[in-house]
Amino acid sequence: MKRAPAFPPLVSIDRRSAQPLYRQVYERYREAIVDGRVRPGQRLPSTRALAAELRISRITVLSAFEQLVAEGYFESRVGAGTVVARSLPDELRPPLPPDPDRAPRRRHRPRRLLPRHPAIRLRGPEPWLGGGGAFRVSQPAVEHFPAAVWSSLLARHSRNPLARMLNYGDPMGHRPSGSQQALAITARVLLDPGHHVWVEEPGYRGARDVLSMAGARLAPVPVDHEGLDVTAGMAACARARAAYVTPSHQYPLGMTMSASRRLQLLDWARRTGAWVIEDDYDSEYRYESFPIGALQGLDRDARVIYIGTFSKILFPSLRCGYLVIPLDLVPRFVAVREAMDIFPASLPQAALTDFINEGEFGRHLRRMRALYGDRRATLVEALGRELGSDLSVIGDAAGMHLAVTARGRWPDHVMALRAAQRGLWVMPLSSCYLGPPTRRGLVLGYGGTTAAEIPSAVHRLRRVIAST
Amino acid sequence: MKRAPAFPPLVSIDRRSAQPLYRQVYERYREAIVDGRVRPGQRLPSTRALAAELRISRITVLSAFEQLVAEGYFESRVGAGTVVARSLPDELRPPLPPDPDRAPRRRHRPRRLLPRHPAIRLRGPEPWLGGGGAFRVSQPAVEHFPAAVWSSLLARHSRNPLARMLNYGDPMGHRPSGSQQALAITARVLLDPGHHVWVEEPGYRGARDVLSMAGARLAPVPVDHEGLDVTAGMAACARARAAYVTPSHQYPLGMTMSASRRLQLLDWARRTGAWVIEDDYDSEYRYESFPIGALQGLDRDARVIYIGTFSKILFPSLRCGYLVIPLDLVPRFVAVREAMDIFPASLPQAALTDFINEGEFGRHLRRMRALYGDRRATLVEALGRELGSDLSVIGDAAGMHLAVTARGRWPDHVMALRAAQRGLWVMPLSSCYLGPPTRRGLVLGYGGTTAAEIPSAVHRLRRVIAST
Repeated sequence: MKRAPAFPPLVSIDRRSAQPLYRQVYERYREAIVDGRVRPGQRLPSTRALAAELRISRITVLSAFEQLVAEGYFESRVGAGTVVARSLPDELRPPLPPDPDRAPRRRHRPRRLLPRHPAIRLRGPEPWLGGGGAFRVSQPAVEHFPAAVWSSLLARHSRNPLARMLNYGDPMGHRPSGSQQALAITARVLLDPGHHVWVEEPGYRGARDVLSMAGARLAPVPVDHEGLDVTAGMAACARARAAYVTPSHQYPLGMTMSASRRLQLLDWARRTGAWVIEDDYDSEYRYESFPIGALQGLDRDARVIYIGTFSKILFPSLRCGYLVIPLDLVPRFVAVREAMDIFPASLPQAALTDFINEGEFGRHLRRMRALYGDRRATLVEALGRELGSDLSVIGDAAGMHLAVTARGRWPDHVMALRAAQRGLWVMPLSSCYLGPPTRRGLVLGYGGTTAAEIPSAVHRLRRVIAST
Repeated sequence: MKRAPAFPPLVSIDRRSAQPLYRQVYERYREAIVDGRVRPGQRLPSTRALAAELRISRITVLSAFEQLVAEGYFESRVGAGTVVARSLPDELRPPLPPDPDRAPRRRHRPRRLLPRHPAIRLRGPEPWLGGGGAFRVSQPAVEHFPAAVWSSLLARHSRNPLARMLNYGDPMGHRPSGSQQALAITARVLLDPGHHVWVEEPGYRGARDVLSMAGARLAPVPVDHEGLDVTAGMAACARARAAYVTPSHQYPLGMTMSASRRLQLLDWARRTGAWVIEDDYDSEYRYESFPIGALQGLDRDARVIYIGTFSKILFPSLRCGYLVIPLDLVPRFVAVREAMDIFPASLPQAALTDFINEGEFGRHLRRMRALYGDRRATLVEALGRELGSDLSVIGDAAGMHLAVTARGRWPDHVMALRAAQRGLWVMPLSSCYLGPPTRRGLVLGYGGTTAAEIPSAVHRLRRVIAST
C-alpha cells in the first residue's frame, strides 16, 4: 500500500469549467480526503501560496477553505495554519490504486441483491406494450378528452391558489389517488407476509405484482364464463386471506361475474373472515345493460374493498382513483397512505371535483360510451368477417377491450410479437397466466383505436395470424 | 330460523326518490335475494301483474327483470315464467332477523385486525400539527410561490396536451415523485422484513413509519452536535442493513453531519454491505455557507440512496421529489414503483421541467433563501431576547426550522399542547424520540411564519413557557 506524500498535492483547476473556481478548489481537496490521498493532520499550503500557485484570487481560496473548515474537512488553529482535520478517521480507507476507472467499475459490478426480490418480477420484454397504436390495451381515447375544460379548471385552482391548496393536505385526499396505489395500500393494510390471496387465472399482472410485493402468496383460481370459480378456489386454498377479483369486466377475458358466484364469494369471505378486493377498472362502459351492481353493494359483512379509477374515463396520467372501504378500516388505510406518500396532490383533485360537480364528467362519460360502443361494434363486426370459426370473441359486453380466444396450443405469444413488429399492439392471453396457460388468444384494446382504422387493422391482424 | 314465504314479497317503490323506478324494482329484488328473503327457484309475479300492482309501466318492470336475468339473479324459461335463479347457492345465508339496524351495526362492530398492524402506529393526537399558523414545522411560504407562472405552465401542457402526456407513462417519471414515496420505494427495494435499520434518535417519524411498514426493525442511534453517532450505532447494532439519515439538516435538531461522521458512516456501509438512505429535505436553504455536499457525492461504493423533494422549494401539495440511486439498482426501483402506483402524474412534471429550464426555479429559490434568511434572523433574535438562558437555540444554520432545547425534564409536551390552544404550532422535541427522550425542547418552523408576526408570536410563546 502506498502512503500519501508528506505534503498534500496541489489541486488542479479548470478555467474553462462552468463550475466556480472556489467550488473546484473545495471539491479537489475534499476528493483527496475522501479518496485517502491525504492524512488527518497533514498541513496545507497557505491560502496566499496556493492562490499564487493556481493564479487565482486569494478570496477564492479562502472561500473554499472556509467551507472545508465549516464542513469539518479542514481545521484551522491560530498560529498553526490550516491542516486536514485530525478528527477525520485515520486510515479509514486505504489509498486507492491509480486506476481512474476503478470507481465507476466498482459502482457497476453486479451485486448480490436481496433474497426477497424475486417477489417483484422484473419486467421481461413485452413488445406488445411498446407502442400506442391499434389495439393497445387500457388506452382510452385521450384525444376526445375535453382538455380545454380541464385546463381552465386547473388554472382556476393554480392561478390564485388558496394556501391550503398548496400546503400539506389530508392523506385521504379529496379521494385517495390511483387504483394501483389503492391496491398497494389495501395490500399493506389487509395482508401479512405469507398470507395466501386468490387471484384470477388468467388475471391482471399489475395486481399480482403489488400483492407479491406485500409478501402475499398468490393462489391462482380459474375463471370460467361466470367469472372466478369460487368452488375451485375453496378446493385449492380455502383459507386464503383475501380474493382479488375484477367482477364487472374480468381482466383480461372480459366476462361479468354472475350473481351466484358473487354471493358465493361473499359467503366464503364471511365464513372464513377473508377480504374481497374488488377492482372495478372500467365498468362505466357497459353496452348492453346498465352498469352492473358492485360486489361492494351486495356486501353485508363489510368484507369488500372497492377500488375504482379515473384513468379510463379521464386520462391515465391523471393518476387518480378511489377506494370504498368499511368504516372500521379507515384509520388503518389513512396510516398506511400517510406512511406511503403522506397525501395526494391537491390541484388535480380540486379540478376533478369541479369537473364532476359542473357536469363535465357525466357529459364526457356519455360521449365516450357512445364512442367506445361504436368502436366495439366495428371491431366485433370486423373480427367476425375476417377471422375463421376457430376463433371466438368474448368479453365484449363492457369496457375497452375484448378477447379473441382459440382452441388448442395456439401460438399467441409469437403472434403478438409479430403483430407488434407490424404496429399492432395485441396482448397474448398466455402472458396473463401465473401458471401454465389453459387458454390462448389475443386481447385487443379498442379504447384508443378509431372506428376508421379498425377494419384495416383487423385485416392486417388476420394476415399476421394466417402467417404464423 | 324463519323460512322465506312461498311467494316472494312484492317490492315497494318510492315515487319521490331520485332513483329511476326500474332501478328501484331491480334493487328491491336483488336485496331480497342477497338478504335471503327469497329462495332459488321461487316463482316471481308476472311482469304484467307486478306493473299493475305497483301502478308503473310494464316496460319499467321488464327493464328491471331483464337486468336481473342478465346478472343471473332471475332466470326465465319459455312457458315457465320468471323464477329466482336456481343456480344461486341455496341456503347460502340464513334469513336475516327483522332488525333494520343489524347490517350497519355489524358493519361497525370492532373486528380483530391483523397482528402486524402495530407496525404502522395509528396517529395519536398531535395538536401541534392541527393548524397552519406561527411555527408550524415544514410549512414553506407558499404565498410567495409564483402561482401565475405555475398556472401558465400547467395550462401550456393541459390545454393542448400531447396524447402521450395524458396516457400511461414511464414508472421513472420525469422524476419519481414525492420524497415520502421515494422512501417507501427504497424500503421495499432494499429491506427484507426483520432487517434492522438505524434511525436517528430523535428523528423523523414519517421515515420510521414507512420503514416499519416495510417490516424493518428500527434501531435508534443517538445524534450529537456532529449528527448521527456512528460509533454508538456500531456498538448497538453493527449489522444493520441500512441507516436512514438527514445529514444536511438533521430532523428535528438541525445540525449538519460532520465530515468525519460522514466518512465513518460510508466506511461502515462499505465494510458491512449496508445501505445509506440520505434524506435531504431542505438543504437548499443554508444561510452561512454554500449548500453542503451530499453524502451521495462522497460515496465511492454505490451504497447511498439520495432522496430529495420539491415540497419545500415549490409547494408540498405538488407531491414531487426525486431519487439518486446506484445504476445497478435502477431496474428494481422501477419494478417496485410500477407495482406501487405504475407511474407518476405527467402534467405537473412537465410544468416542473419548464419551471426549472426557464430559470423560474433558480429565481424562486434565491428569493426564498433571502426571505427565510430574514425570518430566521428575526426568530433567532427574538428568541435570544425573550427566552431565558436555560434555553439554547440550535440547528438554525439551514432549512426552515430550528430547535429550542432545555435542560432536564422540561415539560415540552404540555407546552406544545398549551401553545396549540393559543394558535402557536410548536412541536415538542420529545415526540421525535422512539425511546425515552434524552433531550427536551420545542421545534419551531419559520418557513410559513412572516418576519412581522415572529416577535409577537415569540412573546406569546414565552408566556406559554413561563406559565407551564
